Amino acid sequence: MIANNVEVVDVTDPADPRLDDFRDLNSVDRRPDLPSGKGLVIAEGVLVVQRMLASRFVPRALLGTDRRLTELGTDLAGLDAPFYRASAEVMADVVGFHLNRGVLASASRAPELTVPHVLDGARTVAVLEGVNDHENLGSVFRNAAGLGVDGVIFGSGCADPLYRRAVRVSMGHALLVPFAKAANWPGDLELLRDQGFRLLAMTPDPTVQTLAQAMSGLAEQRVAILVGAEGPGLKEHTMRASDVRVRIPMSRGTDSLNVATAAALAFYERDRLGR
Amino acid sequence: MIANNVEVVDVTDPADPRLDDFRDLNSVDRRPDLPSGKGLVIAEGVLVVQRMLASRFVPRALLGTDRRLTELGTDLAGLDAPFYRASAEVMADVVGFHLNRGVLASASRAPELTVPHVLDGARTVAVLEGVNDHENLGSVFRNAAGLGVDGVIFGSGCADPLYRRAVRVSMGHALLVPFAKAANWPGDLELLRDQGFRLLAMTPDPTVQTLAQAMSGLAEQRVAILVGAEGPGLKEHTMRASDVRVRIPMSRGTDSLNVATAAALAFYERDRLGR
Repeated sequence: MIANNVEVVDVTDPADPRLDDFRDLNSVDRRPDLPSGKGLVIAEGVLVVQRMLASRFVPRALLGTDRRLTELGTDLAGLDAPFYRASAEVMADVVGFHLNRGVLASASRAPELTVPHVLDGARTVAVLEGVNDHENLGSVFRNAAGLGVDGVIFGSGCADPLYRRAVRVSMGHALLVPFAKAANWPGDLELLRDQGFRLLAMTPDPTVQTLAQAMSGLAEQRVAILVGAEGPGLKEHTMRASDVRVRIPMSRGTDSLNVATAAALAFYERDRLGR
Repeated sequence: MIANNVEVVDVTDPADPRLDDFRDLNSVDRRPDLPSGKGLVIAEGVLVVQRMLASRFVPRALLGTDRRLTELGTDLAGLDAPFYRASAEVMADVVGFHLNRGVLASASRAPELTVPHVLDGARTVAVLEGVNDHENLGSVFRNAAGLGVDGVIFGSGCADPLYRRAVRVSMGHALLVPFAKAANWPGDLELLRDQGFRLLAMTPDPTVQTLAQAMSGLAEQRVAILVGAEGPGLKEHTMRASDVRVRIPMSRGTDSLNVATAAALAFYERDRLGR
């Protein structure tokens, strides 16, 4: 059953300007942060569109097949935007490639949150530095959502979590897990410390404490998990601004894990017994 | 310093037939398991080529720039295959795209290992069912290598771990971590049980034991961690053939994690205190 408030508009002409939010997604939206991009947030697929509908990002328009419209059904009850209904072929012409997820939603960027806003009420946050790959960033958000992390703080050198691919890989959690960019880096780590957060900096250094050692006894404390880019890791001045350096016990002869996987292990250790 | 046994052959013609192992990698090698593919194992980049050199996959040929030849240096000491030295442009012409890793190696497939061979001496193995995505499969191998898993057993429906992209994402660990395909599935799980392995089946079912509960007390036992595809998970008859069902404690309102991430958490729980 489709919510009866939904304005369904059938579109058969791929050139229809009402579909411009979704046009040439691969090229126009390549750098949404630049003037050539539209800065729009794009959700792909039923699950991610549902999460956008539940988020602070308010849809401007939806484009999808009749089948996906039916699947979304009453999830569209609160929607105040048109649903452009089109065939898969028309959709492919508009976006520039075949889109097997069958539905898209566009939203303007919501106002950015501040670090204090993200910290408010949070028990665990992730702090990222130099995570400049959109897929890794999306994975971090998916892992954060699944493993009890309440917010994400960006230090320097991170990619845009609202980029289309990051949103997709996050399964839409980049729209739901609150995040903020540090205004001063790494100076803003003091804001976390002032709020009682214990700052754990992840490193491959085999001489420091393991995650299990460092997390024990912190159940009643607020914790921030600092993760750097794969390869270089956290910068030394960021390490120095943390409270404790922690490592994952690794097999001999192996190097680091993927950054999102390493973060997931720390998130897991934080809450492995559940709550 | 380059090992003095290495046969370095300069090549300037992209059509040189001696480079055929590396030709049109994207198209010819798309399905290496089919007759249209060559069935070759391809290593990309210095690190992965180094791991191939340390593996049971014996290089037939290498193709790379002078810079990468120098970087590999004495790692090539045992090499009994030519190193075709070419410019980045010639390499791009041969492989069909720009290859920023600068070096490739090809190897024939080594004879397949058997399940008993992989179990021999192993303390922990991963058992995969329906993991048909090459990147996920590669990530599982990378995580297995980093987190103390000694081998991988494939049930039904898994992708080819020797496909180029799987090898690349695994950081070459698909060439080093021993793996075997079950001849009978899920019947071969009995082989594991006969060898004293405790079979832990991962599931999103919120009513079963957590990883932490299930793993406690197993330090002295052999353990097999069974992981199914993202979405459907393990098949019911595979679940029934296991000893215990285990879950990751997840935040409310979230669905599953990526399959390689879920596997990493189980691998981590197995050895979180290190050894």
